[in-house]
This record gives sequence, C-alpha cells and structure tokens, in this order.
Amino acid sequence: MASYELTVPAPVTSDRQFSKPLMCGSGPSDLLPCVAEALTAPMISPACAEYYNVMADIRVGIQYAFQTRSKLVLAVSGSGHAGMETVISNLIAPGELLLVPSRGVWDEKAKDMARRYGIKVETITTSEPFTTFSHEELESALERYRPAGLFITHGDSSTGTLQNIEGLGDLCHRYGALLLTDTVVSLGAEPFLMDSWGVDGAYAACQKALSGPAGVAPVAFSAVAEAKINSRSHEPPFYFDMKLLAQQWNCYDDTFFYHHTLSSPLLWALRACLSQLARESLPRAWARHGAVAARFHARLRAHGFEFLVRRPEDRMAAVTTLQLPEGLGYNKFVAQLRDTHNIMITPGLGPSAGAAVRVGLLGANASAAVADRVADAMADVAGIKRPDIASQ
Amino acid sequence: MASYELTVPAPVTSDRQFSKPLMCGSGPSDLLPCVAEALTAPMISPACAEYYNVMADIRVGIQYAFQTRSKLVLAVSGSGHAGMETVISNLIAPGELLLVPSRGVWDEKAKDMARRYGIKVETITTSEPFTTFSHEELESALERYRPAGLFITHGDSSTGTLQNIEGLGDLCHRYGALLLTDTVVSLGAEPFLMDSWGVDGAYAACQKALSGPAGVAPVAFSAVAEAKINSRSHEPPFYFDMKLLAQQWNCYDDTFFYHHTLSSPLLWALRACLSQLARESLPRAWARHGAVAARFHARLRAHGFEFLVRRPEDRMAAVTTLQLPEGLGYNKFVAQLRDTHNIMITPGLGPSAGAAVRVGLLGANASAAVADRVADAMADVAGIKRPDIASQ
Repeated sequence: MASYELTVPAPVTSDRQFSKPLMCGSGPSDLLPCVAEALTAPMISPACAEYYNVMADIRVGIQYAFQTRSKLVLAVSGSGHAGMETVISNLIAPGELLLVPSRGVWDEKAKDMARRYGIKVETITTSEPFTTFSHEELESALERYRPAGLFITHGDSSTGTLQNIEGLGDLCHRYGALLLTDTVVSLGAEPFLMDSWGVDGAYAACQKALSGPAGVAPVAFSAVAEAKINSRSHEPPFYFDMKLLAQQWNCYDDTFFYHHTLSSPLLWALRACLSQLARESLPRAWARHGAVAARFHARLRAHGFEFLVRRPEDRMAAVTTLQLPEGLGYNKFVAQLRDTHNIMITPGLGPSAGAAVRVGLLGANASAAVADRVADAMADVAGIKRPDIASQ
Repeated sequence: MASYELTVPAPVTSDRQFSKPLMCGSGPSDLLPCVAEALTAPMISPACAEYYNVMADIRVGIQYAFQTRSKLVLAVSGSGHAGMETVISNLIAPGELLLVPSRGVWDEKAKDMARRYGIKVETITTSEPFTTFSHEELESALERYRPAGLFITHGDSSTGTLQNIEGLGDLCHRYGALLLTDTVVSLGAEPFLMDSWGVDGAYAACQKALSGPAGVAPVAFSAVAEAKINSRSHEPPFYFDMKLLAQQWNCYDDTFFYHHTLSSPLLWALRACLSQLARESLPRAWARHGAVAARFHARLRAHGFEFLVRRPEDRMAAVTTLQLPEGLGYNKFVAQLRDTHNIMITPGLGPSAGAAVRVGLLGANASAAVADRVADAMADVAGIKRPDIASQ
C-alpha cells in the first residue's frame, strides 16, 4: 500500500463523568427497558427477510397509534422535524397556500419550511398568548384564505397547550383544505384519532410519549392526501419523497424497493415502542398520562407554583409549562434541579423562553412516583431561594 | 376523561425466530462491541452539557476520519442518502450545472437529487463497464461542460470499484468546479485525504467501515465550499440546511442553537465508532482492510471465482463484486449462503444486478478469519451445485 501523509492527528476524547439524569423535560424522555434492549438487537439489512418483517410490524403499529386504516403509513429516517418536512413538502405544492395558525415554535418552523418550497403562507395568532384556537377562529381563517392546507400543532411543547382537533378535518374539507397535524409530543399521551377526526397528514417522533430514541418519525397520510401525492407534479426532496418511501416500506405491495438504508437499532426500537403501546392500549396510555398530569398539577399547586397556561382546558398532559416565583432565574432553576436532584427539565422555548420551565412526564416517566418526585424536587429547589414556597 | 372510540384494534406482532447472520454484504456491517455498548448509553437532551460534549467529540472525530481541518464538519441525522442530499442541495444552486461521471447507482441517485432542485446535470460514462475514470477523461468533461461542481463516488459499492481522487480537487478548481465526493463505503477502509486531495464536500455513513448503525451521516465542507454556502441565495431543505446545522453543532462558536433533536443512541454510537478509528489510526485501518481484501481475493481465486472488476487497480478493498459460475442464480446463491452458513452477503445492485454478488469485509468484519470463512462458505455453496468448483 502507498504511504499517505496524515495532516490531522488522531483526537483524544476525554473520559468525562456523566451521571444519567431522570429525563423529565419536553423530550427526550427515558427509554422503556424493552426499548433499550431492542437497540442492541442484531443489525439487519435490506437483504434480510427480517428487515421487511420489522417494517411491516412498524406499519401496523403506527396505524394503531394514529388510529388510521390508511395504507400510506411508515417511519421517516429522521427526527420529528424530518416528519414535518415530509408532510409539508409532499402534500403542499409550490405556489399553493398553507394556513398556519401559530401559537408556538413548531408552527414557526412549519412556516419556514413551507416558504423554502415556494409555498405561500398565511397565519393567524391566538387572541391571548398560551391559549388555543377555537374552531370558529379557524373556520373564519379558512373562509378568508381558502388555503390548500391547514397546518396545526396538536400538543405544543413550547407553550404547554393542547389544540382541540376533533372534527377539524371536516371543517377543513368543507373549505377544500387538507389538515396537517404535528403530534410529536402528543402521540400516545393525548387522545388522537386520525381517521375519525379527518386528519390528512400527521407525523410524530419516537423520543416523547413512545419512550424511544429520536431519529425515526412515524408519518401517516389519509386516502385523500395519498391521492394528491400520487397525482402531484412537484417533487419533494429525495430523502422525504413519499412515493419512493411507500415503495421501500411496501405500503401497497411487496415492492422491496431500495431507497436508503434504514437504521437497524432505530427500527427495532420503534417496533418495541409501538408493541408496548399496543400491549398497554391507547386508552390506558392516554388515561395514564392524564391521571399523572392531574396528580402532578395538584401537587405543584399545593407547592405554590403557577401555570403558564391559564385555562385548564388548554393544558396538555404531556408537557407542563410552569412559571417560577419571582427572583428565580429560569435557566438557573433548571441547572440547580439537575445539580441537586439529577432531574432534567427544560427551560422555556420560543414564547415560553424566560417565562416558564417545561416539564414532561412522558412514556416511561408518566408515573405517580415520578410526578411526586419531580414536583417535590422543584419545590425544594425553589425553596433554596424562597423558603416560604417550600413550606406552603 | 372523555371516552374515545378506537377504529383500529391493537396489532399482535408475532415473535418470529431470527438468527443473527454474519453481516458481510455491502453494508450494514456488524457493530463493534464498543458501539453496541454505546447504543445503550443514557438518553441525553439539548438541555444536557453532555449532549454538546458528545457533539464536539464527534466533530473532531469526523475531522480526523476525513483528514480535514475545516470547521464546517458535523453529522446529519439521516442515512448516507441524507448526507448526499445535504452536500448537493447546500453546495449547488438551482440553475447551476453539476457534472456527474456515472459508474454506479449512487451517481444515478445524485443526478435524481440534483434535478429535484432545478440543478442542471451532465454525465459521462466509463469507456468500459466496471472500471473507473482516468483524470484525463474527467478533465476533458470539465473543460467541455465547465460545471459548478463535479460529483464523484469514491468507493462504488454497486460495481466494486474505487475511483482515484488524489489530486482531483486541483483539477476541478482549475476549471472553477467544486469537488463533491461520496465516501459512504470507503471512509475508514480506503485512503482518503480530504484537504490534501482538495475535496470540497464529502459525506459518509456509519454502517460501513465504521461498524456502527445507519442513521447518522458525517459530512464535511472545505473553506471554499463554506464560503459558497454562506453567500448563497438559494435555500436547501430545512432539515439539511448547513447554515442552521452549523449553529446547532457549534461549528463556529458556542451557539447552542436548537434545530432538531439529535438521536442520543446514534450520537453515542458514532462517537464510539470515531474513537475506535482514532485509536486504531487511519493508516492501520486502511492497511487492515487492504490486507484482508488481498487475502480474501487470493482465496476466492483459488476457489475459482471470477471478479466482476477486471482491472485489479480498479477494485476496492471494502466491497468485492464476484461473478458466479454459470448455472448459479445470484439471488438464490445469496439465500443459500444465509440458509446454510448464516452469512449475509448482498446480491448485485444497479449495474451489477444479475451479474455479481457483493461481499463487504468492513469494520469489525475486516479480519483474516472472516475473510477465510466467507470465501470457504461461498465455495461450499457454489459446490452444492458444481462440486468441481469447491475442490479446486
């Protein structure tokens, strides 16, 4: 072999100490034990029958999780943002109008993405911050703008609000719009019925209520959305092209088409997440997240914390946004909770930056024990600065 | 909680038997033990300091692997194809011309991707199939087309050929073109010196010679490429936007920008792959893959197998393409090798479909013991049909 002169020496990466925290931010949550185990299952390749078996298991698992009988259901090889870009770039053509009622950072990301594809964007905002949209407000905007699509975030982790989507599909369809929905933080934690509610395009992530790793994003499209994709003239990015992905995932037949190499550990992990969700059942998973949030909220109230979201009916179970007593810095509070209790919560983001901390009791961490532990630790840290809070 | 009527019942996914094969196809390879262990390291989030520490470790590891001192170096959260789309969509503007000398399926993918962005594409082909391009042929095409960029695949796993890239950057720059290079199957297995060879944009994958999981793609851009990205007027997809990703990965400063959620297991795994590569050192990793391939090829020749790539100087060490004796079906041979020896190799793809099988001795499987085992097992399976082959 010829000799080659290296110009960059081998790096030495330090062995840092790292003490695993309890993951109670807006995500990622902690892994379910069965998911951690699945991550080390054998590598599989497109040449293995098992590769396609796992993909088939994932597809029925996603159909159950979204509650859809649609065939165009698969997992994109990327984060929730990859799911968002897949749904928007496949469903809305350049020059078409996307209406994005905006109440948090995900809506702003959707607007940014849409504009990159030459999609026109209109937006409305909530009458007050940290609330959700009424269907009357949405109908009025649909009537005014007549968009090709309405993009809405179901559970918005940047505000802690849950948008009512039940029946919104019918409303959109009356005005000729498709309904596109972000369920990244809500899927598996909050009731969501894709077919019954008339949702046309939905995407989620694995690292929230499913308690899996980030990097694989379930997506689903209704029959109407599927027809639009199959008759469209524009082309989305190769990596997100649902026409090609549908062949890779054998959505219609045994096509076994090679599009890109799926990540074995993430396939096994997502399969484990979805199997666990099916074992527990959606109604039980929803009820568990709801009951844990109710218990957590009651305990926080007893400690004297205030909710960023004023109207209880706007609050989501998955992620809670909390104001801190005056004098406590938000980033410092998050750091102290990590330092003193090894609990990881997340500071505010977008509209809640500098206005709240965000606590997620998701998936494996949606339990009464974790809820109590986090609420009490938060009171303790608040009490370091203001002892009157802790004793309330 | 309100009662919701499910329309899709919980799926029951079967407990299928699955016997882990030895992964010796064109990829994925088997995981290094330290990488399998890394996959189960604790979940980390953008709220953890460790998240940024791991990212910093990965960046210096990628600089070493590509041999570049460029700052614009990070890992895209997707497969090698995501890396390909990142490099093309960030570096070449709509309306500009990309020259794609084509000898395998990755070049065809690059052409498809480029066209989706309104990039003009010109191509040349090798004078004979399963060979590589001379620098004279490439210079003649550069002179004729004066492209904004030349895309070339270093190791082409669909033919088994390795393109000589040494000095190609200077050639491209003389004609005003940037050099874009696919190193998915070659990185860590074949000598590659990004800075010395004048490569402007390179991407790789984790599941080949790095012996990690798919789903995370190292990318690197030269200073010239970086300047072009920072002054461009077009916008690539959000998910692949290097301007935003550079902020997330703190390429220039401690920006700690949130772009999307990186996959914890894949971050830990890529870090482990790159640490192992640095420990072994690039020259040793290259020499190991080269020596193992030489041993494998000699043994295959002794068994009577023929190489699809006629000229030895065109053959790559990472993936070998082999013809089978007449009368042996390629897909059937692959299946029999799996059934009888539990060794997974891959059938031909693109130009090699129906003309060869593809064997990869990559990363953890680039060892003399594996080379002998695979060569002998292949002879055994060939001998099931043609006993005269096995006894040669």
